[in-house]
Amino acid sequence: MAAQSWLHIPTDSHFSLSNIPFGIITTPDSQVPHPAVAIGTYALDLAVFTENNGFSGLPEFQAHLSVFSQETLNAFAALGQTVHRAVRRYLQSVLTEGSPHAALLQSNSGLRQKVLFPLGDIHNHLPMQIGDYTDFYAGKHHAVNVGTLFRDPKIALQPNYTHLPVGYHGRASSVVVTGTPLVRPSGQILDNPAADPKVPIFSPSRRLDIELELAAFVCKCNKLGAPVPITDAHEAIFGIVLMNDWSARDIQAWEYVPLGPFGSKNFQTTISPWVILADAMAPFMAKGLENESSLLPYLQEKKVDNMYDLELQVNLTSKQSNTKCKGAIQQTITKTTSRNLVWSFPQMLTHHTVTGCPMHVGDLLGSGTISGLDASERGSLLEQTSGGKVSMKLNGGEERKFLEDGDTITMTGWCGESGALVGFGDCTGTILPAVSL
Amino acid sequence: MAAQSWLHIPTDSHFSLSNIPFGIITTPDSQVPHPAVAIGTYALDLAVFTENNGFSGLPEFQAHLSVFSQETLNAFAALGQTVHRAVRRYLQSVLTEGSPHAALLQSNSGLRQKVLFPLGDIHNHLPMQIGDYTDFYAGKHHAVNVGTLFRDPKIALQPNYTHLPVGYHGRASSVVVTGTPLVRPSGQILDNPAADPKVPIFSPSRRLDIELELAAFVCKCNKLGAPVPITDAHEAIFGIVLMNDWSARDIQAWEYVPLGPFGSKNFQTTISPWVILADAMAPFMAKGLENESSLLPYLQEKKVDNMYDLELQVNLTSKQSNTKCKGAIQQTITKTTSRNLVWSFPQMLTHHTVTGCPMHVGDLLGSGTISGLDASERGSLLEQTSGGKVSMKLNGGEERKFLEDGDTITMTGWCGESGALVGFGDCTGTILPAVSL
Ligand SMILES: [Ca+2]
Ligand SMILES: [Ca+2]
Ligand SMILES: [Mg+2]
Ligand SMILES: [Mg+2]
Ligand code: NI
Repeated sequence: MAAQSWLHIPTDSHFSLSNIPFGIITTPDSQVPHPAVAIGTYALDLAVFTENNGFSGLPEFQAHLSVFSQETLNAFAALGQTVHRAVRRYLQSVLTEGSPHAALLQSNSGLRQKVLFPLGDIHNHLPMQIGDYTDFYAGKHHAVNVGTLFRDPKIALQPNYTHLPVGYHGRASSVVVTGTPLVRPSGQILDNPAADPKVPIFSPSRRLDIELELAAFVCKCNKLGAPVPITDAHEAIFGIVLMNDWSARDIQAWEYVPLGPFGSKNFQTTISPWVILADAMAPFMAKGLENESSLLPYLQEKKVDNMYDLELQVNLTSKQSNTKCKGAIQQTITKTTSRNLVWSFPQMLTHHTVTGCPMHVGDLLGSGTISGLDASERGSLLEQTSGGKVSMKLNGGEERKFLEDGDTITMTGWCGESGALVGFGDCTGTILPAVSL
Repeated sequence: MAAQSWLHIPTDSHFSLSNIPFGIITTPDSQVPHPAVAIGTYALDLAVFTENNGFSGLPEFQAHLSVFSQETLNAFAALGQTVHRAVRRYLQSVLTEGSPHAALLQSNSGLRQKVLFPLGDIHNHLPMQIGDYTDFYAGKHHAVNVGTLFRDPKIALQPNYTHLPVGYHGRASSVVVTGTPLVRPSGQILDNPAADPKVPIFSPSRRLDIELELAAFVCKCNKLGAPVPITDAHEAIFGIVLMNDWSARDIQAWEYVPLGPFGSKNFQTTISPWVILADAMAPFMAKGLENESSLLPYLQEKKVDNMYDLELQVNLTSKQSNTKCKGAIQQTITKTTSRNLVWSFPQMLTHHTVTGCPMHVGDLLGSGTISGLDASERGSLLEQTSGGKVSMKLNGGEERKFLEDGDTITMTGWCGESGALVGFGDCTGTILPAVSL
């Protein structure tokens, strides 16, 4: 049985003592964004904890205390995995019943009141300053499904797919934290794809979609021209978040050949609030999807269990269902697992740097949409509705092909056992109507 | 005739009194990067000039003096075009013979010695901190040429090409300033494209290429979900630089379908050192290439002369020619003009934000490769050698299909009349051999 905290932590909390995820918050006491960890139903304010000698029991960290008075986690991330591990384990011990550090917080009610804030009382902010954001395409079932819809099913997977982690550069400036509303994007769409010549119209997107992804934050730089060997790549992963790569399928279909998705993706990308450290995920690794090609040596990992093993879920709450008399009906539209990936984050990072591209602390790598084989396991509506041809039935009698104004999407993910769950917290956003230009 | 400076400015200098481009330098006196302008054969150190009351003749700028003690131009850029214009014109007047500000610098030999550094004595650094970098594809002749080589000539231009500025997100972290050497990238290439199945090898790129581009820095933010109307877009352009979007064609060919270029581009992108302000380019606007499609209203500009009118040139110096006995032979391999674009930077910016994408001060927008119709006017070797089929003859008897180790590429660009030239300074880089993993 896992160690117990002296704090009451509900057994179904994703922020058990086994987790200790890091984020950036503002509190009723401080409107300047600063670091915190989530524990049970609380945020532990690391700025206040540090100011009050909270790290006095961790002598080797004394030189680095200033990282917890920063507005992002970049400075903490840059200290490297050895420090992340030491800090996480120290905080676990501070929060554990019967720990040698009991005097510090458990029996210090004055400090407890200053550092522990109910999660409902704080606001989350972007955990990192993101220099560059890259989105990969490592969800193989997703790639097959989309390739079949957008292109000839016989070449659903391009010849390169099993040889390299296909990816594209995304837009760092539009990555936002959970809760940020999504204004329905407008852009060029092809009303009649069969017409010749093809002439687009300008319209709010009619095929607004989600993409269920994991994403990893980078904690180690490499120099321009100096690739990161696969054996070192795991050290460059700070931790992971859930990501909704909102996508406008009609804008995408018209714009994406030949240089890839652009306005159909860059309007907003939402991530969950708390970064689960690589250290916390270490016990939850599994084998991913089989890759039928033999890999070039630079992409070969020694360990077979190279994928995070998380349960993932997407919920939709419709505006119609969200009325005072009925209460919101949150309906699960996707259940899948992050084992449905064919490339690991270390493989993505090594491939990303192989031509010499420099990574910076705070860079974000998206996994690509995660889908299972069954219809109920698909991480995008595009796949669930066969490209908008088949409606999805919602419980209240509503139907959906793509998202409607007022819909709220909430993604969740977790691993571990009841009482020792490790999860992200919600990755959520509500669709607002398009604005006129 | 243009106003004359009391400084000796060679008539062929690209940094005439009509220019006053801004950059970031270190000097023998200060190793901390800081702002400067280029004038003739000198850099005028704006940090030292500011400390010594250089802006005492510009009262409305007193509140903003701290922007010239920053390590990038972002803070200055964020002040907006009205301030850029006032500062540029003030500096012009300080440097003009017979100006009312003569006491300030012209007749103050002590200050002259502290603020004017020969360009050979300073180092240039990246002028802006680049949040996000986007590369467009607005060189229509280039798009036709490349489409013909990579795809069916009948669909060389995709149906979307004339309706929207096609672009993709690039890698901000690998944008470097002129003079940075380029390590030849290695990656996956398809040695035998006809084989079935297609199996890549790992190799240094054998088809290392250049792309001659203009690029614009952004000086105005827009909020997430709030597009920039075309009528406001010109105000968001801080100024322009030359850009070499180095490209590994063999890596590109294998990786780019379906999500666009990735490792073939993200290894390095080189820009020229000095930003020519939008104000300096105002007299040098012309009509670009005809667009046969009628544009959707959001992309329609009022003015017909919406393109910068610059002469552009690419020079190659081979290692072989660069020996002590002969001296380097710099050979011009491309001459063209920036009128060979079909989309303007304001159109690119408006399209970029139309779905709601936020721009930040310091973001960089590349024009796409600029090529004329003739072989001698093509901005990439791919085009000049018909996809590597026809060798380019160099003067010393050498031939080239793509770049060889030791080759130096130097791009230049200018407009205006002798004695009043407005140019960038060199955008240059030398190819170093590939490193082994
Ligand atoms: Ca995606
Ligand atoms: Ca380019
Ligand atoms: Mg997105
Ligand atoms: Mg490049
Ligand atoms: Ni960026």
